[in-house]
Amino acid sequence: MSGTTLDDYTDRYAQRARGMTASEIRALFSVASRPEVVSLAGGSPYVSALPLDAVGEMLGELVARHGASSLQYCIGQGDLALREVICDVMSLEGVDASCGANPDDVVVTVGAQQALDLVARVFLDPGDVVLAEGPSYVGALGVFQAAQADVVHVPMDDLGLIPEALEEALARVAAEGRRAKFLYTVPNYHNPGGVTLPEERRERILEICQRADTLVLEDNPYGLLGFDADPLPALRSRVRDGVIYLGTFSKTFSSGVRTGWALAPHAVREKLVIASEAQILCPSMLSQSAVTTYFQTMPWREQLKTFRNLYAERRDAVLGALDDFMPSGASWTRPGGGFYVWLTLPAGLDSKAMLPRAIHNRVAYVPGTGFYADGTGRQHLRLSYCFPPPERIREGVRRLASVMEEELDLRATFGAAPTDDHPTTAADSPPQGLA
Amino acid sequence: MSGTTLDDYTDRYAQRARGMTASEIRALFSVASRPEVVSLAGGSPYVSALPLDAVGEMLGELVARHGASSLQYCIGQGDLALREVICDVMSLEGVDASCGANPDDVVVTVGAQQALDLVARVFLDPGDVVLAEGPSYVGALGVFQAAQADVVHVPMDDLGLIPEALEEALARVAAEGRRAKFLYTVPNYHNPGGVTLPEERRERILEICQRADTLVLEDNPYGLLGFDADPLPALRSRVRDGVIYLGTFSKTFSSGVRTGWALAPHAVREKLVIASEAQILCPSMLSQSAVTTYFQTMPWREQLKTFRNLYAERRDAVLGALDDFMPSGASWTRPGGGFYVWLTLPAGLDSKAMLPRAIHNRVAYVPGTGFYADGTGRQHLRLSYCFPPPERIREGVRRLASVMEEELDLRATFGAAPTDDHPTTAADSPPQGLA
Repeated sequence: MSGTTLDDYTDRYAQRARGMTASEIRALFSVASRPEVVSLAGGSPYVSALPLDAVGEMLGELVARHGASSLQYCIGQGDLALREVICDVMSLEGVDASCGANPDDVVVTVGAQQALDLVARVFLDPGDVVLAEGPSYVGALGVFQAAQADVVHVPMDDLGLIPEALEEALARVAAEGRRAKFLYTVPNYHNPGGVTLPEERRERILEICQRADTLVLEDNPYGLLGFDADPLPALRSRVRDGVIYLGTFSKTFSSGVRTGWALAPHAVREKLVIASEAQILCPSMLSQSAVTTYFQTMPWREQLKTFRNLYAERRDAVLGALDDFMPSGASWTRPGGGFYVWLTLPAGLDSKAMLPRAIHNRVAYVPGTGFYADGTGRQHLRLSYCFPPPERIREGVRRLASVMEEELDLRATFGAAPTDDHPTTAADSPPQGLA
Repeated sequence: MSGTTLDDYTDRYAQRARGMTASEIRALFSVASRPEVVSLAGGSPYVSALPLDAVGEMLGELVARHGASSLQYCIGQGDLALREVICDVMSLEGVDASCGANPDDVVVTVGAQQALDLVARVFLDPGDVVLAEGPSYVGALGVFQAAQADVVHVPMDDLGLIPEALEEALARVAAEGRRAKFLYTVPNYHNPGGVTLPEERRERILEICQRADTLVLEDNPYGLLGFDADPLPALRSRVRDGVIYLGTFSKTFSSGVRTGWALAPHAVREKLVIASEAQILCPSMLSQSAVTTYFQTMPWREQLKTFRNLYAERRDAVLGALDDFMPSGASWTRPGGGFYVWLTLPAGLDSKAMLPRAIHNRVAYVPGTGFYADGTGRQHLRLSYCFPPPERIREGVRRLASVMEEELDLRATFGAAPTDDHPTTAADSPPQGLA
C-alpha cells in the first residue's frame, strides 16, 4: 500500500487511471482492522448468524451431486434457476410480473457492485452527468469516478432525497445544456444516510424523472432489512420502464458469494450481458448454485427475520449509546432498517482530521468525505452497526464521544483551528471490502 | 436474444456501448447446445473428471467450519492464503521469488478475464494500440474492443508468434507516430492457434518488446496442460519487469469458481486493485477459500495428470479423425497441450458461411472470424477437443468433413461463389460462456 513506489509506468496509464491512487485513509483502515479497535466503519453483514453447518452440508451435497454444472462456466446472463429465485425475492417488494419483471430481463452480476459498473459502462461517457443523493454510496461514487462522470449531489433530509431539490438539480443541469444520464438512488435504509424514502416521495421522484426523461438507477441492498415495518414497494414496482433495479444477496444471504443482479429494460439488459461477458465471461456458477439451492431448500424467510432482529438490536444499541454519550451539537439519523447511522458533528469538528485520533482511541468510522464526489462532508461521518455485538457498539460510541469531547475541549481552549476545507475525493473512502 | 426489440435508450448509451450488439452467430450457438449436436465450439474444461464427492466434502467442511470468513467480504486484492497458493502454482513455470514474484504483487480476479479487463482499464485509452497474435483469444479481443483500442494482429506460424513480424508491426505502429501500449500473447497451447512458443522465440520476443519499451501481457491459462513435455518457463520468469502475467484456475481446477489472477509490477498492481474494487468490491471469498483449500489439502498434482491424460486422449482423437476424414487442401495445427486445434479450410471455403450448414449437420465450431479484430479469418476455424469424449470428437470431425466435402462439391459443380470477404467483427464470436 506504499504510495512511494517509483512508478515506471506513469506515462503509459490510461487517462482514467491517473486518479487511481491509494489514499492515506486506506493505511488507517489497515490499522482499524486490529481486534482492539471497535470498527464502526465496515459494512460487513453478520454472516455468522447463518446456520453454517446446514449451509455447509447444502454446499457439499450440491457439488457432490451437481459438480459437473456448479464447477463449470455458465451463460453470461447467469443461470436461469437463479434468475427465477431473484424474481421471487423481488416480488416481496412489489417487483413482479404485474410490472413486467421476468427472469429474461435479469442479469446476474458479481454483487450489485458489478451491476453498477456495467450500467456505467453502457451509459456513461466521460463528462456525463449523474445525479446522486448527497451523501451517496461510496462504491457507486467510485464507479462514476472511474467512468469520468460528473456527479451532481441532490440533498436529502430525514425522509431521504428531497423532490424539490431533485427538480432544481435537473433544471440546473438542463440550463447548462446537459442532460443527466440517470438518477442513482438508494431508497431504503440509505447507505450512508440511514433514511428511507416514504411512499409519496417515491411517486414524486418517479414523476420528476419521467418528465425530465431521466433514467432511475434504483439500488436496493437493504430493502428486506426493515425493522419496524413491511417493505415499501420498490420504485421499479410502480413503472414498467425508465428504472434499472439493482439487488444483491450480500445482506440476505452471504456477501462472500458476490452475487447480485440488475433488472433492466430488455434492450438495456442485452447490452449489460454483452458488457459483462467482456468483463468476467460469466458469474460464478458455484456461487449461483449455492444461492439458488439456499433459497430453494432452506428457510430463508425465517433467516431474514433472524437477521432483522439481530440488526434491530444493534441499531437500538447504537442509538441508545448515541443518546447517552454524544456531546451536544451532534445529531444523527434514526434508521428503520439497514446497517448505518449518519452522524453530524458539532460545528467546527472535522471527521477526516479526527479519524487518526479516533483510531488511536480504538474506534473507527468512515469520514463523511468518502460519500461525496466533491470532497465535502467533513462535518459528517458514517457509523455501521451491522457487525459488532451490541456491547461493543456501545463501547465504540463511548470512545468516539470521548474523542469528540477532547476535540471540543481543544477548540474551547485554543480557539478554532483553521478549517481545512479543501475538497478531497472518493479516494478518502476505506478499502471497499470494508464499505 | 432478439435483435429486433425497439430500443428506447439508443440516444443515451455511452459511445462504447453502441457496438454492443448480439450477432447472428449467437443465435446459432443456442441451437448448437442441443444434445444431438457435437460441439467442438466451446472451451469448457471437463470438470467431471474432478473427484466431485471429495470436493463437495471439502467445501461442506470449509463452510461449516470457516463460514464466518468464507461467506464474507474480503479485501479487494484477494485473500493472502490464496495469493500464496498462486505463487506456488506459478513456480511450476519458473515464476518464483528468483524473478521477484511474491504474493503482494498478485491480484485475485474473477477469472483471468477480469484481469484482462482491469489491465485494459488501467492502460487503454480509446485509440490506443494493442498488439496481439493473429488469431487471438476472443475474450481478449472483446476487452480491447470495449476499451475502444486498435488491435494490430501479428502473424503466427507453427511455432507461435513470429519475432520478425512483431518487429515489423512495432516499426509500423511507430512510423504512424503511435506506441503500442502492450503485446498481448498466449505463449502456451495458444487459444485458438494450438501452438506453443519455443524457448528461443521467448527470448527474442522479450528483447524486442524491451527495446521498443512495450509491455508484455502474458496470458497463460493452459501452461500446465502440456501433454508431451514439461512446462516451458513463462516469459515472466525471465524478467522482473515489463511483463504482466495472467493466470487462472479454470483449467487446473474449476471454471465455475471464476478465479484467476494478475501478477504485476507493484505500481501497476496497486492500480489494478483500485480498479477491481470499483468493479466488484472484492472477489468471492467462497470461491477463493474453495481454491485455497483444494490446493492445500487435495492431490492437485495428481489431478493435473488426470486432466492432462484425459485431454491428451482427446487431442489424439481429434488429430486422428482429422487425418482420417479431412478433404485434401485442409491443414491444421498439432497442439502439444491445451484445448484447441486451428483448422485452415481448403481454398474457397468460408467457415462463417458454412456454420449454419455444419450445425444443421449436427456439428459446431467457432469460425475464424471471431479471433480477428479486423474481421478476417474466414478460411479458418477453431475446434475444441476439451469437452466431448473421444468417440464424439471423432464423429464431430466426420460430420464436419462431410459438410466440407459437400461445399467443395457445390463449388466444383457451380463454380466459386463470390467470396463474401467483407470484414466482420469480434461479435461473430460465440457467447463467451462457450469460448
